[in-house]
Amino acid sequence: MTHTSLSPSDKALVPFVSVDHMMQLVHRIGIEQMLTGIAAYIEADFLRWDLFDKTPRVASHSAEGVIELMPTSDGEVYGFKYVNGHPKNTKEGLQTVTAFGLLADVATGYPVLLSEMTLLTALRTAATSALVAKHLAPKGADTMAMIGNGAQSEFQTLAMKAICGLKTVRLYDKDPAATAKCAANLAGQGLTVVSCTTPEEAIQGAQILTTCTADKQCATILSDNMVGSGVHINAIGGDCPGKTELAEAILHRSDIFVEYPPQTRIEGEIQQLADDHEVTEFWKVISGKVAGRTSETQITLFDSVGFAIEDFSALRYVRDQLETTGLFHALDLLADPDNPRDLFGMLLRSSANSNNH
Amino acid sequence: MTHTSLSPSDKALVPFVSVDHMMQLVHRIGIEQMLTGIAAYIEADFLRWDLFDKTPRVASHSAEGVIELMPTSDGEVYGFKYVNGHPKNTKEGLQTVTAFGLLADVATGYPVLLSEMTLLTALRTAATSALVAKHLAPKGADTMAMIGNGAQSEFQTLAMKAICGLKTVRLYDKDPAATAKCAANLAGQGLTVVSCTTPEEAIQGAQILTTCTADKQCATILSDNMVGSGVHINAIGGDCPGKTELAEAILHRSDIFVEYPPQTRIEGEIQQLADDHEVTEFWKVISGKVAGRTSETQITLFDSVGFAIEDFSALRYVRDQLETTGLFHALDLLADPDNPRDLFGMLLRSSANSNNH
Repeated sequence: MTHTSLSPSDKALVPFVSVDHMMQLVHRIGIEQMLTGIAAYIEADFLRWDLFDKTPRVASHSAEGVIELMPTSDGEVYGFKYVNGHPKNTKEGLQTVTAFGLLADVATGYPVLLSEMTLLTALRTAATSALVAKHLAPKGADTMAMIGNGAQSEFQTLAMKAICGLKTVRLYDKDPAATAKCAANLAGQGLTVVSCTTPEEAIQGAQILTTCTADKQCATILSDNMVGSGVHINAIGGDCPGKTELAEAILHRSDIFVEYPPQTRIEGEIQQLADDHEVTEFWKVISGKVAGRTSETQITLFDSVGFAIEDFSALRYVRDQLETTGLFHALDLLADPDNPRDLFGMLLRSSANSNNH
Repeated sequence: MTHTSLSPSDKALVPFVSVDHMMQLVHRIGIEQMLTGIAAYIEADFLRWDLFDKTPRVASHSAEGVIELMPTSDGEVYGFKYVNGHPKNTKEGLQTVTAFGLLADVATGYPVLLSEMTLLTALRTAATSALVAKHLAPKGADTMAMIGNGAQSEFQTLAMKAICGLKTVRLYDKDPAATAKCAANLAGQGLTVVSCTTPEEAIQGAQILTTCTADKQCATILSDNMVGSGVHINAIGGDCPGKTELAEAILHRSDIFVEYPPQTRIEGEIQQLADDHEVTEFWKVISGKVAGRTSETQITLFDSVGFAIEDFSALRYVRDQLETTGLFHALDLLADPDNPRDLFGMLLRSSANSNNH
């Protein structure tokens, strides 16, 4: 973006990472390296969990979907994400989830980064799942059932490969075209990819069961008799009140790990359970405060809904790449007159300036 | 902004109004016409008040200031504003308040406008004050005391001129340089501008008393004995818990009008009063549900804190100017693959594309 009539001060310009720049960033760094890097930032932020302002996201629900704002702050940096969830969008050729996010300096309130987050949300969701699986999946887990082969499925798979050593992914989607798309995208990525025609086939031999579907309703993607002992369930889909993926009986057989209980109780699989059903905050596992997996037969369940701190971590990661990559535009987002009390004077002078051109 | 390696679809591009474009828009339309136009949009939205999702803003407080998200929706369009309030910023050469905002389509969740709102907030705050004064100030009011001559003061004054027929403004600020700046900016705008050296001098003969100061503490800009009968007080400053401008005794002598009581009780002058002190929602005056000014001796007080619907109205106004003015950039904010389930494929193809260039 060029500025023809005015040169705003540096403070007025906010680095903006477009979709195009985000894609270039992924290719520059390498997708598996970037997933690993984002997971490391998430892990670092989960280790200082108590520092963060935490609040359930601010949701605006409509018949068609939801628009949410997800703010958080570590006291020095403030971040928020705008994200929508509209399951019907796919039929109209639109993304179910689009997003963008921002970081700002807490001391001044000035934004310091604006970024697309449709891609970045896919990356951070996958990085979070793999970080959790690294701590909770059974030892030697190298096979994942990927049930739901939509926009998130390839990211989940590559994060599990990069961070957990996944070797085989077994794909299933009720729409065979989605499975074909996912298999084609994963070809040549160093994984054994098996396309399955039933969920029962997909879970054969898998130690990690990932569900990632997007209907805005209670569904049963995994039924109780499908889930054997010793597996790790990574329940990604379902981030709305009224939307779940797992049979309730599975929840009662599992040790349940969540991001932030007040939000997960509203949006996650545990909507189906009593409000006081015991769950473990995953950050406590990383920090060593509580045990993760304690036996080979235990079923661990990550009831993922996505939390603001993960977005914050992902934005921090992107911000730290700006200087070396230069993959951003300087966006004329903030009015910043030389004399801060003279906003009107800046406006007046812009008129004089324009008239001279 | 040009896109070198990819041409995102139209859906992926969000109109962005930069600070430069906003200034050009003000000059293209004329500032008084634009203030009048925004006031009309606010009035129209206040008349359909019940339609809106209303919530107190989501604030993140720190020692230095506050960062807030202000969402609302009319069921068809969703809007939110990011805004900070950092009184100390001025000393560091920064704006006390910076802001940007967004509109999105409720049916799809896709953003349809991103705009700077530092200037637009100044315009909408002034337009709201003038809209309220039009309904509440005594008949024939043509003189305003403007106490606090910072970034908002010229906008307040010109809105009162355009919408209420103001002829004279009497300026006071504890910093004479601020008054000199304001007087210089208002020269040639068709008003009699009187620079005063005390607040007592400023309020002489004024039917409208506007206070607009920014200290984050309880202050007494107007004391009880300064306020005679029959005036309209437009209390703009103070939008934090712990920050007020008026002596409490004035509040007890006034009929108090507010935007949205749950927010004003937290942030406004009425923090000083009991939680059940009677206040009138201003939208009810416009809609004829309750009386506004009922006598010549009454003191009316607009305890302004700024509400999300006003930002929504201002953004609607700006959006409606885009087509005729072309004053926006198309921002590559949203990932929008041809096949919405193939986000990863879009990423893969962008690599192939880049390699070809």
